[in-house]
Amino acid sequence: MKPTVTFAAGPSQIYFTVEDHMRQAFRDGIPSLGHRTKEFEAIFKSATDGLKELLGIPAGFHIFFAASATEIWERSVQNLVSEKSFHLVNGAFSSRFYEIAVLLGKNSEKHAVPLGQSFGDSVSVPAGTEMIGLTHNETSTGVSLTQEFINQYRTSNPEALIVVDAVSSLPYPSFDYTKVDSVFFSVQKGFGLPAGLGVWVVNDRCVAKAEKLLSDGKKIGTYHSIPFYLQNAKKNQTPETPNVLGIYLLSKVVEDFLRRGIQSLRKETEYKAAILCNLLENHPLLSPFVKDKNAQSKTVIVADCGEHVGKITNYLTELGMSPGDGYGELKKTQLRFANFPAHSREQYELLVDSLEKLK
Amino acid sequence: MKPTVTFAAGPSQIYFTVEDHMRQAFRDGIPSLGHRTKEFEAIFKSATDGLKELLGIPAGFHIFFAASATEIWERSVQNLVSEKSFHLVNGAFSSRFYEIAVLLGKNSEKHAVPLGQSFGDSVSVPAGTEMIGLTHNETSTGVSLTQEFINQYRTSNPEALIVVDAVSSLPYPSFDYTKVDSVFFSVQKGFGLPAGLGVWVVNDRCVAKAEKLLSDGKKIGTYHSIPFYLQNAKKNQTPETPNVLGIYLLSKVVEDFLRRGIQSLRKETEYKAAILCNLLENHPLLSPFVKDKNAQSKTVIVADCGEHVGKITNYLTELGMSPGDGYGELKKTQLRFANFPAHSREQYELLVDSLEKLK
Repeated sequence: MKPTVTFAAGPSQIYFTVEDHMRQAFRDGIPSLGHRTKEFEAIFKSATDGLKELLGIPAGFHIFFAASATEIWERSVQNLVSEKSFHLVNGAFSSRFYEIAVLLGKNSEKHAVPLGQSFGDSVSVPAGTEMIGLTHNETSTGVSLTQEFINQYRTSNPEALIVVDAVSSLPYPSFDYTKVDSVFFSVQKGFGLPAGLGVWVVNDRCVAKAEKLLSDGKKIGTYHSIPFYLQNAKKNQTPETPNVLGIYLLSKVVEDFLRRGIQSLRKETEYKAAILCNLLENHPLLSPFVKDKNAQSKTVIVADCGEHVGKITNYLTELGMSPGDGYGELKKTQLRFANFPAHSREQYELLVDSLEKLK
Repeated sequence: MKPTVTFAAGPSQIYFTVEDHMRQAFRDGIPSLGHRTKEFEAIFKSATDGLKELLGIPAGFHIFFAASATEIWERSVQNLVSEKSFHLVNGAFSSRFYEIAVLLGKNSEKHAVPLGQSFGDSVSVPAGTEMIGLTHNETSTGVSLTQEFINQYRTSNPEALIVVDAVSSLPYPSFDYTKVDSVFFSVQKGFGLPAGLGVWVVNDRCVAKAEKLLSDGKKIGTYHSIPFYLQNAKKNQTPETPNVLGIYLLSKVVEDFLRRGIQSLRKETEYKAAILCNLLENHPLLSPFVKDKNAQSKTVIVADCGEHVGKITNYLTELGMSPGDGYGELKKTQLRFANFPAHSREQYELLVDSLEKLK
């Protein structure tokens, strides 16, 4: 029997409306829909306008669709960095953003801290940094950056573009879009959708930078360069044949989220995080991996389980709940619990009650 | 009411089993399935082994998944060309392959012929060409290359890698894989699947070339470089979180095609092409755009309709059949008819009978 609910960090639990939306998509011919049609343009507009409303993204920002957040790491560096980016690294995913910059031949630098730790109040940025890569929620360890931490860089580095990886946190965080230039995520996490779509939000400063690189004769890629994305997005189109069904499903789930209201989603996220974190603080077998409460992620909660990983996994799986493995080496001693809108209040209460009984 | 069947060249008609496969996917938890699980590896293996069997792809070839054929144009040039590629251009899509090489800074050349025409018996390849880009089926005009034409380049240019865009023809063509190094397609055409997945077939010569470029200090991309693809594919995995559902659906449709048999699919394709081409030869309002019979595509059949485009489109749409528009400027005077496995014999007979009555 398949588990009733998966707490893996992504691909994760599918939002409860998605299967119905998929059936409707087949009834409406969406899987055959051409990407140069008026119908597709309406879907593109619904998805991007809906996301702007849901996340409070102001004028001067544009939304593009990529295949994955991994692709957006690559496209960000290609389009926004001539020589040097700077990356705050505290786990596997923030590290990969840095590594991609190096593979693309940039003279990039990083500031790394041990797994599970925060960066303190501030990290100084090297001179000549064109792009600061911040990972709002390090999915491998469950360390989150505060909004205050993110927002300080605009003042201290007015020239640099501030790019925020929010892969496993959106739609929960409320960013101050006057303090960041780009945010991105993939849909198989907080949006409860099948994998295969990354969403890239960029502002006009990013557009100007990419255009500057291009006019300076730099290579910024081809069909997924920012100028070519923008030229198509202005027509509510994509440069290539995209994942049409994925964009359709995103537009529908965004409608669902708007109906629930972002404040309600955020409050529920905080409630669920609070009851699980509280349990971890007081459990004989589990404890929070991230000690600094300000750095504890609300959307990917990581538990140190020591030698009990197998026992806890089996216990929860029997109850129809599949916890996420720890990442990489930490798999042996940790479990991760995604806390996304697809995870209902009732499922979280059952999870916490069940773990409580394991005491 | 939605048309019963679309003859657009892609996204095109969905294969008749796809909706059931999608329902089964939801029952089996595929939309939530992690891409580092044994279950995903089995799906990856089923899709790639199935494709090798279906298309007769021999040992020494590898199959990778991209987001689109557009991405594969870019990745091909990045991974296989240091200085110079050469492209045979006879329409918008073959031209775009060339343009992408230029955008990536390559010193590429092209040989172009007018729309709707073939390249004759042979085209000489400039010295120093590392990759020859051939478009087996130019989707914009319905011009196809013969296998003899493709196969001559191995002998005349043994050092060059021969890369074949088969986006809108596979699974119909039977390539001689001793004469080509790479073939690619996207699933929303001949495989009757929702858009959002490109399939890239490369041999060990391509792997060696990418590794050589890398060891020479060239930039060949990051997560979708051939060496990184291969490292993951050996584990039946992908570098990034892929379109899991798309790969699952592909594996299922490939199973369906294998059950029908590739010879049966090919014969049916030829039968359907023959009845439509025969009609076009003898119709007062429509005529074949491609005059050279050897160059007429079997999978995208393009009709010159002169001033009757609107009338024919309305007539067919009323009957529940949606023809594909002509491409670009040719939209005003042409219609395109995709002839894929998703278009049944009965649908084609109805299409031809209906057009016959329009005389």
